[in-house]
Amino acid sequence: MRTDVQHFKCEISDGIATIALDRPERKNPLSFESYAELRDWFRDLHYADDVHAVVFASNGGNFSSGGDVHDIIGPLTRMSMKELLSFTRMTGDLVKAIVNCGKPVIAAIDGVCVGAGAIIAMASDLRVATPEAKVAFLFTRVGLAGCDMGACAILPRIIGQGRAAELLYTGRSMSADEGHAWGFHNKVVAADELLGEATALAARIAAGPNFGNMMTKTMLAQEWSMSIEQAIEAEAQAQAICMQTADFERAYNAFVAKEKPVFEGN
Amino acid sequence: MRTDVQHFKCEISDGIATIALDRPERKNPLSFESYAELRDWFRDLHYADDVHAVVFASNGGNFSSGGDVHDIIGPLTRMSMKELLSFTRMTGDLVKAIVNCGKPVIAAIDGVCVGAGAIIAMASDLRVATPEAKVAFLFTRVGLAGCDMGACAILPRIIGQGRAAELLYTGRSMSADEGHAWGFHNKVVAADELLGEATALAARIAAGPNFGNMMTKTMLAQEWSMSIEQAIEAEAQAQAICMQTADFERAYNAFVAKEKPVFEGN
Amino acid sequence: MRTDVQHFKCEISDGIATIALDRPERKNPLSFESYAELRDWFRDLHYADDVHAVVFASNGGNFSSGGDVHDIIGPLTRMSMKELLSFTRMTGDLVKAIVNCGKPVIAAIDGVCVGAGAIIAMASDLRVATPEAKVAFLFTRVGLAGCDMGACAILPRIIGQGRAAELLYTGRSMSADEGHAWGFHNKVVAADELLGEATALAARIAAGPNFGNMMTKTMLAQEWSMSIEQAIEAEAQAQAICMQTADFERAYNAFVAKEKPVFEGN
Repeated sequence: MRTDVQHFKCEISDGIATIALDRPERKNPLSFESYAELRDWFRDLHYADDVHAVVFASNGGNFSSGGDVHDIIGPLTRMSMKELLSFTRMTGDLVKAIVNCGKPVIAAIDGVCVGAGAIIAMASDLRVATPEAKVAFLFTRVGLAGCDMGACAILPRIIGQGRAAELLYTGRSMSADEGHAWGFHNKVVAADELLGEATALAARIAAGPNFGNMMTKTMLAQEWSMSIEQAIEAEAQAQAICMQTADFERAYNAFVAKEKPVFEGN
Repeated sequence: MRTDVQHFKCEISDGIATIALDRPERKNPLSFESYAELRDWFRDLHYADDVHAVVFASNGGNFSSGGDVHDIIGPLTRMSMKELLSFTRMTGDLVKAIVNCGKPVIAAIDGVCVGAGAIIAMASDLRVATPEAKVAFLFTRVGLAGCDMGACAILPRIIGQGRAAELLYTGRSMSADEGHAWGFHNKVVAADELLGEATALAARIAAGPNFGNMMTKTMLAQEWSMSIEQAIEAEAQAQAICMQTADFERAYNAFVAKEKPVFEGN
Repeated sequence: MRTDVQHFKCEISDGIATIALDRPERKNPLSFESYAELRDWFRDLHYADDVHAVVFASNGGNFSSGGDVHDIIGPLTRMSMKELLSFTRMTGDLVKAIVNCGKPVIAAIDGVCVGAGAIIAMASDLRVATPEAKVAFLFTRVGLAGCDMGACAILPRIIGQGRAAELLYTGRSMSADEGHAWGFHNKVVAADELLGEATALAARIAAGPNFGNMMTKTMLAQEWSMSIEQAIEAEAQAQAICMQTADFERAYNAFVAKEKPVFEGN
């Protein structure tokens, strides 16, 4: 997987890609360029065999301040509908690319995590936060609707319809405690432990059966709007496929030998 | 928006409609007439430009005791199937009208909130309650099923499938503490602060971009059973529409001028 | 309803069926035979009029250790795709049979509740647990995906998408406290009270209108992927049917006579 990106930070080590927005002096806003490059990078990630999990990290004490007011919001106020729809589809395509990349994505959230930043956290599979994390879906603050990049569909499934409605109507911050109690954050840790915890969680998952993890991620999205019966049939097929991987046999052999299995992702 | 209603209380002030059932001596039961008039009022609300949020208030220390045993349940036991389906469709139409009215609805819940009263609270966008609030989906108590007016679809999305199943099978009360911990109530406040808190929340939302709020409400319902991909495309379109409102430009101009935006809902 | 089963324990008393896996010395693993017999038993239950609720109990301090490593996992590593799909469909058919049996199912969970055992708990309507209950969707530990028997669809609806993702990716145990806080367990009680509490809850539900309970269960599953509008129309029809049952009239008559209704399930 390529790490030669221009508009965000990217490192790959031991099968874990660690990325972060990289304008810490402005709390890591997104620009047209970083949106597009992130979208393309996550799309490519779908085909990569050398990355098994992603940590979307904070940088300089903040996750992201969202779409930059000067670089993005100003120009948007002067665009035609055709151009606006191109923009909103590009931002939505970033969420689709994260959802479809086939690798678990863990957001490591410190400080400001608002607007499109909050969306990226929401679109991740898991979230580790610091007590200072402030997550706000503040689209109403800039005169828009809460329905941005899938928020009205995804946020209610994570924290419940009533809490999601409050955050989306008011744009208020969700504190770290609320986020943990509501199931948004999987864990809250001190700032100096944040990247270590997120990376350890990524490593734990990446040490598992990565073909199976890809299938878990696929089905978590795929079954979103299926009936129960359709979902059960879909999983019967998906799991039967996984039962023909060598990792399934490796786990069985390790169990019989009273050893710990070493998975290879095939 | 008209306030000349016969079967419930209705006042409009500063763009906020405050309504309440009005038989406090009997804990505000619903009648055939109040059901129908509420349905018609919420349907008209969809077209009103002078109301930006609704507070569905308690009255005399209670929210609602649900369908009146004498006025409604007695007659229902003697109806034909055609008449019964007309009734259950009318009650369902009230929920549809609340969901589709285009304005955030905040239930202010004190005391008894049961049966159809609990449904109205559930169908609202947000809920503020007092410690005395007792919410019960008590349809099994009157020999019926928990699937009333959308409860089996909507309640699980607010509080989770397992808790919803318990409330719907047993008909037991959900306490204010449970309701808050489970995400049903957004806030719990003392009884003498209830209407003030609910109104303040309504005012805060109504001071936001009301076209955007309408779109948030629309999409929270619209995306209910969409796939993730469909929801993201739907939001790309919805938000692009909102980016052509003057409120979006007002917010940007206010930011540049370091002022607080004043939204006008267009 | 028949109780002459070979591969699990089954007793029926006062309209409540109490079943349990029956290999306590190995923490109650499932075998091909017990899977199939449970599936058939729950399918038959759909037509039974003498059972109104089911308690799926623990046995010897544990609920179930899931698919047996020697009896099931070993053979699976040597099967063809056709055979594998037959197996995953059979396990999925057990979940479908539990969901479609028409009677509320209450899992009473003590000790180990993992793999397919965790799935049976998840597929139940309600869950009572002990502080010692350890629920783990540990499919990744055996080299597979978390999408087993409907887990990627059902678990997120019970505990939220973010928590479900963590459990399914890592395979880690959910403690009793977590399960309660997250809405998986409806109640946590001491081990010596477990069966009594679960049975009392079953009895309370079974004393209600059982035709209505069947309809509640049906619609909780049926409305899973409906739009809000479809769900409300579906409930208008379902509840109109229930309004023609004698239990509805019994409840009304009891109320008028200031008595407690005695429901008969018709």
